[in-house]
Amino acid sequence: MKYLLKLSYCGTNYAGFQVQPNANTVQAELMRAAEKIFTVPCLVTGCSRTDSGVHAYEYYATVEVPCGGANISSEKLPRALASVLPPDISVMAAWHVADDFSVRRAVSGKEYVYTLWTKNYPNPFLADRAWHYTRPLNMEQMNEAAKFLLGKQDFAAFMASGSSITDTVRTITRCEAVADSDGTVKIYVAADGFLYNMVRIIVGTLVYVSEEKIKSEDIADILLSKDRKKAGKTAPAGGLYLNKVFINFER
Amino acid sequence: MKYLLKLSYCGTNYAGFQVQPNANTVQAELMRAAEKIFTVPCLVTGCSRTDSGVHAYEYYATVEVPCGGANISSEKLPRALASVLPPDISVMAAWHVADDFSVRRAVSGKEYVYTLWTKNYPNPFLADRAWHYTRPLNMEQMNEAAKFLLGKQDFAAFMASGSSITDTVRTITRCEAVADSDGTVKIYVAADGFLYNMVRIIVGTLVYVSEEKIKSEDIADILLSKDRKKAGKTAPAGGLYLNKVFINFER
Repeated sequence: MKYLLKLSYCGTNYAGFQVQPNANTVQAELMRAAEKIFTVPCLVTGCSRTDSGVHAYEYYATVEVPCGGANISSEKLPRALASVLPPDISVMAAWHVADDFSVRRAVSGKEYVYTLWTKNYPNPFLADRAWHYTRPLNMEQMNEAAKFLLGKQDFAAFMASGSSITDTVRTITRCEAVADSDGTVKIYVAADGFLYNMVRIIVGTLVYVSEEKIKSEDIADILLSKDRKKAGKTAPAGGLYLNKVFINFER
Repeated sequence: MKYLLKLSYCGTNYAGFQVQPNANTVQAELMRAAEKIFTVPCLVTGCSRTDSGVHAYEYYATVEVPCGGANISSEKLPRALASVLPPDISVMAAWHVADDFSVRRAVSGKEYVYTLWTKNYPNPFLADRAWHYTRPLNMEQMNEAAKFLLGKQDFAAFMASGSSITDTVRTITRCEAVADSDGTVKIYVAADGFLYNMVRIIVGTLVYVSEEKIKSEDIADILLSKDRKKAGKTAPAGGLYLNKVFINFER
């Protein structure tokens, strides 16, 4: 029996989604919870890796229950898992899916949102949940630069060095910075796929544009250079949230 | 030298504001931070007690620095304290005040906001920051009942039993439940002063009204009875936030 779970989690206490030796992860918590509920070890597969300290407003994972596991309806599964999961991981909904359903293949794209807290004092409710950045942000220039990142392009310059990925072409469908009246600035990046640290490097680069270390029209040259060193610094993990997952349930 | 601090804190990790034996508190953290910055032990006085796990969007405290303490301008004090305070306590602003300024006397009233999370799955970002309550809330009946609490009345029935306070008359100037489209319900209570657990008992009582355990018009009888047992249960601490402090800087 295979279930698709829609999740949400606060990543502060986790070394990312994927199981790691010597560190707690969201996947490890889900495996422990599933084994308690189904009484047998289950296979948990996530839709995406997330880094240590990164959060998810929306995330999808499948749980494969082998023969002999307890029989639980998909309607009852979220509440059953809630009773054994820590409060920083939540199952919002669950569905039965076909045995050959692959959550990785079902995902056609994702949207991340990066949160900055811009007032001059720290926000105690956003500790590890936003980048505390106190210099004035030039929203107009950042959004001017963001436009250069849209479309199908080679994002090699926006990938952490040392990554083994060779196909670095992705299609960004949204890249936009929005200032909120409460003192937060949110940067939305949606694409068909992401390279390692891509959103955090994009955020660091847009902040460099605001600081006039990079001109918005330089973005085109940075993309062409494919040189990580030409882009901005990698923004801190705590500000990053997986916001939406574009998933095709039929596959 | 005396400073007035405007603070904000997430109360999850603290046994309230006031110093306690064998437990960490916000006041203890402020005293440790002030001693580091001013190089001498300082007296920290808060505008109000808050319970264990209760939060503050806004809070005022004074710091009295004895002779021999370091000389720091009020403009530089928030950043100096931020460098030694934990990230869940923030100093938003600081002012010099007269030596006879009393933060308790300067406060003429306060507003609390109580947050409920009403979707059927837990919100991982509101663990310990909201009451997860999943039954449908009858906003109309709750607001009908809330109106009976307005004005100058004896709130003895809305005070935790065992309190030694004898003058239980207070004036509530706002009592209102507001539903947000994101799944949170906020209950605002403003008054010239509050009795022990008063807001949490009011919230528990309004929820009883929604559950039809109490009729909205029964509120008048509960007030007249002065009997704690006639009101609703005390709502959990984690949903409560000190929202605004009405302070007179001239006193």
